[in-house]
Amino acid sequence: MTNPGAYLQSVRDTGPLVHNITNFVAMNFMANVLLAIGASPAMVHAREEAAEFAGLAQALTVNIGTADTAWGAAMQEAAAVMARAGRPWVFDPVGVAATRFRQELSNSLLDLRPTVVRGNASEILTLAGLGGAAQGVDAGDTVEAAEGAAAALAQRTGGVVAVSGPVDYVTDGACALRVANGHPLMARITVMGCSLNGVIAAFCVGQPTLDATAAALAAYGVAGEAAGREAHGPGSFQPAFLDALYRLTPTALDASARVEAVT
Amino acid sequence: MTNPGAYLQSVRDTGPLVHNITNFVAMNFMANVLLAIGASPAMVHAREEAAEFAGLAQALTVNIGTADTAWGAAMQEAAAVMARAGRPWVFDPVGVAATRFRQELSNSLLDLRPTVVRGNASEILTLAGLGGAAQGVDAGDTVEAAEGAAAALAQRTGGVVAVSGPVDYVTDGACALRVANGHPLMARITVMGCSLNGVIAAFCVGQPTLDATAAALAAYGVAGEAAGREAHGPGSFQPAFLDALYRLTPTALDASARVEAVT
Amino acid sequence: MTNPGAYLQSVRDTGPLVHNITNFVAMNFMANVLLAIGASPAMVHAREEAAEFAGLAQALTVNIGTADTAWGAAMQEAAAVMARAGRPWVFDPVGVAATRFRQELSNSLLDLRPTVVRGNASEILTLAGLGGAAQGVDAGDTVEAAEGAAAALAQRTGGVVAVSGPVDYVTDGACALRVANGHPLMARITVMGCSLNGVIAAFCVGQPTLDATAAALAAYGVAGEAAGREAHGPGSFQPAFLDALYRLTPTALDASARVEAVT
Repeated sequence: MTNPGAYLQSVRDTGPLVHNITNFVAMNFMANVLLAIGASPAMVHAREEAAEFAGLAQALTVNIGTADTAWGAAMQEAAAVMARAGRPWVFDPVGVAATRFRQELSNSLLDLRPTVVRGNASEILTLAGLGGAAQGVDAGDTVEAAEGAAAALAQRTGGVVAVSGPVDYVTDGACALRVANGHPLMARITVMGCSLNGVIAAFCVGQPTLDATAAALAAYGVAGEAAGREAHGPGSFQPAFLDALYRLTPTALDASARVEAVT
Repeated sequence: MTNPGAYLQSVRDTGPLVHNITNFVAMNFMANVLLAIGASPAMVHAREEAAEFAGLAQALTVNIGTADTAWGAAMQEAAAVMARAGRPWVFDPVGVAATRFRQELSNSLLDLRPTVVRGNASEILTLAGLGGAAQGVDAGDTVEAAEGAAAALAQRTGGVVAVSGPVDYVTDGACALRVANGHPLMARITVMGCSLNGVIAAFCVGQPTLDATAAALAAYGVAGEAAGREAHGPGSFQPAFLDALYRLTPTALDASARVEAVT
Repeated sequence: MTNPGAYLQSVRDTGPLVHNITNFVAMNFMANVLLAIGASPAMVHAREEAAEFAGLAQALTVNIGTADTAWGAAMQEAAAVMARAGRPWVFDPVGVAATRFRQELSNSLLDLRPTVVRGNASEILTLAGLGGAAQGVDAGDTVEAAEGAAAALAQRTGGVVAVSGPVDYVTDGACALRVANGHPLMARITVMGCSLNGVIAAFCVGQPTLDATAAALAAYGVAGEAAGREAHGPGSFQPAFLDALYRLTPTALDASARVEAVT
């Protein structure tokens, strides 16, 4: 993949409205991430308006981190709007192994065929096992250990699955890419993964999903590398990361992205 | 207006308790904004206690950004407490054009005659059209285009209406002021407008509403200018902005405020 | 107390999973505080899953800052899980004097005998008066004025009570410690107290509660002192504080902690 910068340029040019039904912990930082990358964020979760709002948005993200039954219904209704309209939506199964409520909600969301599923290796392994084989849920699961589960999950949804880790793995069930950008401090700050969902959604608007997802992961990781060079710890990393996203240029992204096809 | 610093001094001297029923995205940053300016914030939205809590507060802010039906009831009950007590409350119709739920809730809150309504030009144009003429809702509406709507809205509520933008417009339906402070990065950070509502509420405690609102807008903008001189992007802008609010003196505010009467 | 660093080392070695049912204002910063100190945070409040999730966690914190009836039930169910398992849980009665709802919920939580209760002097005085004598609720209550109430409350719960202030007071109803670390800016930033609850919970995992609580207060205060030396105001204090927690070593904590027994 030689042109991730083109996807960033597209976001900057169009400023897509990204509708997020995300957890409470992520809302503020995720909105700032989306503004920094050039998109327009909206955090709208109430069932009274979620589906109507989805009709206005170019993309949607759904994250079960602090969901409850009412939120689950809003997520399903908003995702259905995006699916009918052929617009991208990203599903993040945060902590799906932890409770039956998360597993049942996640299974129902998978039935709506998310454009992109993004999670860590343990979450992807758990998801792939829902309604089927035994669950593999170890906190220490490696990205490599989840590659087969990611491909199986992509075949179920007909979309793309991204496994986050030191080197990310992205697959549509047939082809796969690895993205090797990032910084270790990104794992020491809350909601870095949740906020990435918004960037993926923005990059996918009007673009081929597999490449757009990889470009989003690369952009996020390159900004993380820049922030890591300036930070003295996880506190100073956060403003530096938002600054780096805001200042990232397509040219710099093309020069620093480490995306390669899995052969 | 020659003395906005006097309003800041009053907040510093009295540390008013400001009760906020605001959206989830804004809660943390808004509380820190209020602490930095010298007020005492409380975020209390549950219907089980919102009205009772309002009875303890010197001012209230209401923001529909992440409201639902239960929140709407709590907003109405808390606003009614402030109205009966003659204490100021500020209403922010975030994204009112987006959904019917927001329009109906906003219309019901306008009936309670907020002391100050603050929004961007599109929001004020939408609000002024509720229950009446056709809606003008363009994302690109200019502050100038909303001046007539602001005056009409102020006449409906009997209060003050503030239109945020590069140059803010504040009117009570008879007189009007323009406030020309601020920095472009303020539009690239989430909940800057939401958090401003708290500063307006604090400045209005025991003060004439039109001038106090303009003074609050000036203080916020002057702090933004100071932060903009230090920031490398929207990430580093945020801590610099809170520092600038905290360090802002009445004398510096008087020297830097750009408030003028509309003649 | 000569070895608070040993408690920090234990957290770093074991990375305990701390389950938090905390207020919306605190969720993000508190999660980052827990990550910075070396623990693993989870913010899970929905009644659909709170008790089940508590079964996975090494410690729990409960904070009534933005609770409602459904949250209250989830808090009670999760706390009961921890009590049955003999695992530590920390209760923070934020603003308990403000509303009847908070007083009734707090009283019911006290019946579940929290391992640690942490609050400011006014909150501890109010709590001690619940279901009993007259309430003393002044915003200006000093830590000293709450020492007797803290001891009485510790005797009711059979646990530890910590009173936060310029010099903290920690008691199990028989013995008491004072912790004299901290920085004045910590009182000018929201949710500093709420986030401390998580650090206390993490330090108490598998350790004697009174000493672990004092060690947590000292670690938090020492990090605050380091941040205070770098900050230009409450905005820059926050990233500096997270950096300082992350960089704090057991050796530095032992050298800077000011914990002494009350004799």
